[in-house]
Amino acid sequence: MTVTVTAHARYVISDIDPRLYGSFIEHLGRAVYTGIYEPQHDSADENGMRRDVIDLVRELDVPVVRYPGGNFVSAYNWEDGIGPKDQRPVRLDLAWHTSESNEVGLHEFADWCKAAGTELMLAVNLGSRGLDEARNFLEYANHKGGSYWSDLRIANGRKEPFDVKLWCLGNEMDGPWQIGHKTAEEYGRLAHETAKAMRAFDKSLELVVCGSSNAKMPTYPAWEATVLDLTYNEVDYISLHMYFDNKANNTADYLAQNKKLDDYIVSVAGVIDFIKAKKRSSKRVYISFDEWNVWYHSNEQDRKILEGNDGWPFAPPLLEDIYNFEDVLQVGLIINTFIRRSDVVRIACLAQLVNVIAPIMTEPGGKAWRQTIFYPFLFASRHGRGKALDLKVSGPTYHAPSVGEVDCLDVAAVHDEAQGFVTFFVVNRSETSHPIEISLEGFGDAATLSDHQVMTHADLKAVNTAARPDAVVPAQGRGVTVTGTRLTGAISAYSYHMIRLKI
Amino acid sequence: MTVTVTAHARYVISDIDPRLYGSFIEHLGRAVYTGIYEPQHDSADENGMRRDVIDLVRELDVPVVRYPGGNFVSAYNWEDGIGPKDQRPVRLDLAWHTSESNEVGLHEFADWCKAAGTELMLAVNLGSRGLDEARNFLEYANHKGGSYWSDLRIANGRKEPFDVKLWCLGNEMDGPWQIGHKTAEEYGRLAHETAKAMRAFDKSLELVVCGSSNAKMPTYPAWEATVLDLTYNEVDYISLHMYFDNKANNTADYLAQNKKLDDYIVSVAGVIDFIKAKKRSSKRVYISFDEWNVWYHSNEQDRKILEGNDGWPFAPPLLEDIYNFEDVLQVGLIINTFIRRSDVVRIACLAQLVNVIAPIMTEPGGKAWRQTIFYPFLFASRHGRGKALDLKVSGPTYHAPSVGEVDCLDVAAVHDEAQGFVTFFVVNRSETSHPIEISLEGFGDAATLSDHQVMTHADLKAVNTAARPDAVVPAQGRGVTVTGTRLTGAISAYSYHMIRLKI
Amino acid sequence: MTVTVTAHARYVISDIDPRLYGSFIEHLGRAVYTGIYEPQHDSADENGMRRDVIDLVRELDVPVVRYPGGNFVSAYNWEDGIGPKDQRPVRLDLAWHTSESNEVGLHEFADWCKAAGTELMLAVNLGSRGLDEARNFLEYANHKGGSYWSDLRIANGRKEPFDVKLWCLGNEMDGPWQIGHKTAEEYGRLAHETAKAMRAFDKSLELVVCGSSNAKMPTYPAWEATVLDLTYNEVDYISLHMYFDNKANNTADYLAQNKKLDDYIVSVAGVIDFIKAKKRSSKRVYISFDEWNVWYHSNEQDRKILEGNDGWPFAPPLLEDIYNFEDVLQVGLIINTFIRRSDVVRIACLAQLVNVIAPIMTEPGGKAWRQTIFYPFLFASRHGRGKALDLKVSGPTYHAPSVGEVDCLDVAAVHDEAQGFVTFFVVNRSETSHPIEISLEGFGDAATLSDHQVMTHADLKAVNTAARPDAVVPAQGRGVTVTGTRLTGAISAYSYHMIRLKI
Repeated sequence: MTVTVTAHARYVISDIDPRLYGSFIEHLGRAVYTGIYEPQHDSADENGMRRDVIDLVRELDVPVVRYPGGNFVSAYNWEDGIGPKDQRPVRLDLAWHTSESNEVGLHEFADWCKAAGTELMLAVNLGSRGLDEARNFLEYANHKGGSYWSDLRIANGRKEPFDVKLWCLGNEMDGPWQIGHKTAEEYGRLAHETAKAMRAFDKSLELVVCGSSNAKMPTYPAWEATVLDLTYNEVDYISLHMYFDNKANNTADYLAQNKKLDDYIVSVAGVIDFIKAKKRSSKRVYISFDEWNVWYHSNEQDRKILEGNDGWPFAPPLLEDIYNFEDVLQVGLIINTFIRRSDVVRIACLAQLVNVIAPIMTEPGGKAWRQTIFYPFLFASRHGRGKALDLKVSGPTYHAPSVGEVDCLDVAAVHDEAQGFVTFFVVNRSETSHPIEISLEGFGDAATLSDHQVMTHADLKAVNTAARPDAVVPAQGRGVTVTGTRLTGAISAYSYHMIRLKI
Repeated sequence: MTVTVTAHARYVISDIDPRLYGSFIEHLGRAVYTGIYEPQHDSADENGMRRDVIDLVRELDVPVVRYPGGNFVSAYNWEDGIGPKDQRPVRLDLAWHTSESNEVGLHEFADWCKAAGTELMLAVNLGSRGLDEARNFLEYANHKGGSYWSDLRIANGRKEPFDVKLWCLGNEMDGPWQIGHKTAEEYGRLAHETAKAMRAFDKSLELVVCGSSNAKMPTYPAWEATVLDLTYNEVDYISLHMYFDNKANNTADYLAQNKKLDDYIVSVAGVIDFIKAKKRSSKRVYISFDEWNVWYHSNEQDRKILEGNDGWPFAPPLLEDIYNFEDVLQVGLIINTFIRRSDVVRIACLAQLVNVIAPIMTEPGGKAWRQTIFYPFLFASRHGRGKALDLKVSGPTYHAPSVGEVDCLDVAAVHDEAQGFVTFFVVNRSETSHPIEISLEGFGDAATLSDHQVMTHADLKAVNTAARPDAVVPAQGRGVTVTGTRLTGAISAYSYHMIRLKI
Repeated sequence: MTVTVTAHARYVISDIDPRLYGSFIEHLGRAVYTGIYEPQHDSADENGMRRDVIDLVRELDVPVVRYPGGNFVSAYNWEDGIGPKDQRPVRLDLAWHTSESNEVGLHEFADWCKAAGTELMLAVNLGSRGLDEARNFLEYANHKGGSYWSDLRIANGRKEPFDVKLWCLGNEMDGPWQIGHKTAEEYGRLAHETAKAMRAFDKSLELVVCGSSNAKMPTYPAWEATVLDLTYNEVDYISLHMYFDNKANNTADYLAQNKKLDDYIVSVAGVIDFIKAKKRSSKRVYISFDEWNVWYHSNEQDRKILEGNDGWPFAPPLLEDIYNFEDVLQVGLIINTFIRRSDVVRIACLAQLVNVIAPIMTEPGGKAWRQTIFYPFLFASRHGRGKALDLKVSGPTYHAPSVGEVDCLDVAAVHDEAQGFVTFFVVNRSETSHPIEISLEGFGDAATLSDHQVMTHADLKAVNTAARPDAVVPAQGRGVTVTGTRLTGAISAYSYHMIRLKI
């Protein structure tokens, strides 16, 4: 049974915010130390930043990077990371049971962002701290000078403000694991007052309030309703997080989980509509899906450190998931979901960027390489900007135990009007090949195949390593034909495709 | 500037539930007495029901009629309306300050429904009464026999159960004007327990819980969230009501009000999504928009009776809005909105059907005639069943003071696959004519114009009366051409169109 | 129709607390900088304080001055204002969107108070900060020495404690505009714990808890009930604020607004009674009406700064209302109300004292002068101390749209037993003259007219300016005759009178 896909130029979901392809760096494990920062490394630049990593990040073209956490931020003093490096305190990080040298802080990370061609998205600590430290952080980062904190920044060598516009009001504050975890009422009130104080400094900030850490939280989605009720008019985005795992080693069910992601987004969009009406507001709050990825491969090996049995190590390997080919499909499915919900999901951050559940891995003093999931993120980031198309897809489905029926082929498409491309992202999550027939309507009389990248592998569990970094890589696609405005071909079992048509 | 409309066979919003074209009869004013029921009337059938009215209702092809209220139901004892007519009590109706003879009750109304070719939608009284009377009513109406209440029905002359499947759990219980008004918590609990008891009798019932009486209620939409939280798994629909008025005599703003209707539906759909997620439910609750219409023309003349200054009259004229041509456009706009939101609005009831804010008017002992709004309802009811199409419309807009920008032409379309028709409902709410170009895509190579009905009038305030019942009527449309799959033409200022294409 | 007034020596409302004539200086606009403090000014004393301003404040005989805010205090770090001036930080004041140099702090202001012959009333920051900073501030200000904070005070040059007895627990914490705004529960708990900690240091402190910012707050007066319920036994006063405006330019209604003030006081007194009973307490909490005045003339010109469009200016003109003659009457009416409610209002603070909605204005480097409202405050402060008399007044009334019937003549009187005076404050708020007859009873056989000051003006909108500082000033009154214990005369339209009788 052929999968038929209709893509129509007038049927558009939304303009995609480029920040849908954001990422995340937390002071966690080797994300910062021996990840982006390693002064002793051969490739280190004048700031001690690894150029090999910067090159890979630039390859991914990440528009925004969230920093410095994550759980880390809820007991982080931002002042620890400024001033002369040799005077910065070593802190015990309660979130990950490690030691933090504070060699990298706001200044260093901002410089790295510039080198990596990305923007900063900062988080304030609403766990162990509150409004006052947040407003100081903001003044330090963004005020031009002539006040205590801005003058201190200048004294620390940075004349121009960092001018960070996108700020997270804490992280996962609904999570009992969070240092300074709060009830929805407690957090809503604190977030509101902090947001107000921050806006009293600069009305134009974009502020992100914490939603649920995942859709299984017992407080979800009442948390969203309460928090938005208390903050609606002062915030711009509500943050959601979701991680995927195949612990049950059930590929069919694993690759159907983006249906849960979709439900999660739809439900929170419903809460937003509800509170918008309750507030008689004309403003729409959007979703910042600022942590998402596959995360489970490393759980077992992390246990000892996270339980504190190793004391307080500095930058130990943590959350170093080694991704396999199956995860390529999963990441493709997740991104397709974001594209289809780009009307409500404006920002999304792949968690994370380097070493820690990351597309990029490094060896201390050694190589940097691309994990398997690097590629579907790369293709979407590079070619998934423009207008998300409202596709009509019909074809075979299969039954996934935990979510019900799902399409064997998951398809998203983006129309880049400026360059004249329509790009399809197709994931075959089923164990059989399927013929596909795509009709382009309203895009003109003829299209040509501009690029077709395929990822497939005989072994779902195949991984890339330092020794074999190219075990799982894209290849030029074959077997797809474009005639006029009709594309036909076959999508082989368990495969990922980026198909780019010039129109 | 031409209005361009794309209708694509694959881009479907939803299958329309035929009950989207339902209506409503309340024991109020002359809806029942001298409306549908008038034994002395020349046209009266053996049950005392006016055949002239039945004929007009049959013309409208109303699939379902809500009964017996409305506000009336909140102090109504259903037992008053059964048994020998001469033993039925006269009651003071607190909702409308009138006397109720109870000559018409369940039996009589059910017989009338059969004669009028429609189904019953019953409401239980959750104002002055509760669970126990509701379960008795249900048993009386639906049990086959062999129990106290079902045997009483049989003794009252009705062997077969009425078998009513659709039940309202009270009416507008959020309204302080309601007899036995309740807080959201009070009502949610009562509705839940009543629903449970009713379902204990018959799992297959469809139950409607009360949402807000209108979107300006101070408790809206928190009411919906609380009530659904308390009832979600026991109910199938949440009821919304909305009335429209042009008291300000601002046509441009008046005819833009369906944007508020749309917001209302979207927001309550959001609440449903929220509570569905909160309940971890796979069931979707839908909207029963079971009261809607224009209502304001009669406000002034009703005041004396409603304030009780006329004592307790029997079946006085009340809510007898005389609709004008402007209201034709408004009703067309409202129905278009329901078609476009038919994915969440499954049931809608034009309030009401006869004499009381109604498409059909009667004189006691005299004529029955069609008000202006009869026609847009007629066309939608007759030709608006099938699949609602997801149209892409672009064209000129105007700024309405209370809602912002709206399209000059409001368009909805329905695909009747079985009969092979696509029907467009087009309302020009602007004061100028607009060229239109409709593209049919995916429906085959050629379409033909099957019917085109137009309503327009030189005087926006023109009305139909007993003396001049045809002052405002549809006419055969002209000036629309279909070539292949493309329809072109002009839509004149302030006009309503039903354009039916055979495909 | 003659207005008859009976003043009887035995009919006494209350002993007036002299602090009924308090005032307020906030770090806002030019209240401090170029207001009281201007080292470059010709009149500057050794502390940089303007002697011309001090003289005017001494003329007013203000017994207490609240400091340093106001909204300002809710993001103020008191430590910023101590220590060497050249090391004090410049802060961004989020309340008024200005820069704060901190040149004036506790030490400087306390010295000024001494020079101006007044007492300090301090506020702790319960917006961005909490209990800990409050107890430190208290220890710094009031401990004799031998502890960290008191020794720091001594090191900063002040050996003797400031010994401040009257402390405000934050400012307007019910206001959503407040940095660190709190719900009634949040604030009540914080205020209670802070008060407890402060009393643990010194039981004899007088503590003021925040009531409503005005009687139109949606939370009023539930706020008072909740806050007092949570704090009753630890506080002595509840703070109220009220500002008056004539934006509608309706003099009759404007000059009737003290009826609302009276309602406000009566209602909060009722809440105090309620909670006193609920707590089974024998202690009575009183009202500190610590912000009141006319405020509206400057609203428009302040907008740009308050919206942040001018960046962060230092000491810009803000809230510089230029008061007119009409406001003289209003201030007289307000003070009369306080005198009549002096049994529950013990403290009141004219907001503010210099430049910012103030009786005293200055030019930077130039003159200082008296605004119109200087005078009614002056007369009350000078001659309104003693026992408030429970007058019986009957005479003509007029109907004010927003408050109903009010007396054309508003009269209050104070009996100074020590000096042997009875002083009447009479405001004619009507547009016609009224004969008056005052009977003194129980004060002896004869009284003599000691002083009679009148303010009246042909132009209700007349103002004093630097160029014409004497446009609106008091004059010796005429036309009042005292015979035995009976005073007769006429009170001309729109006039203010201070009539002082020696008994």
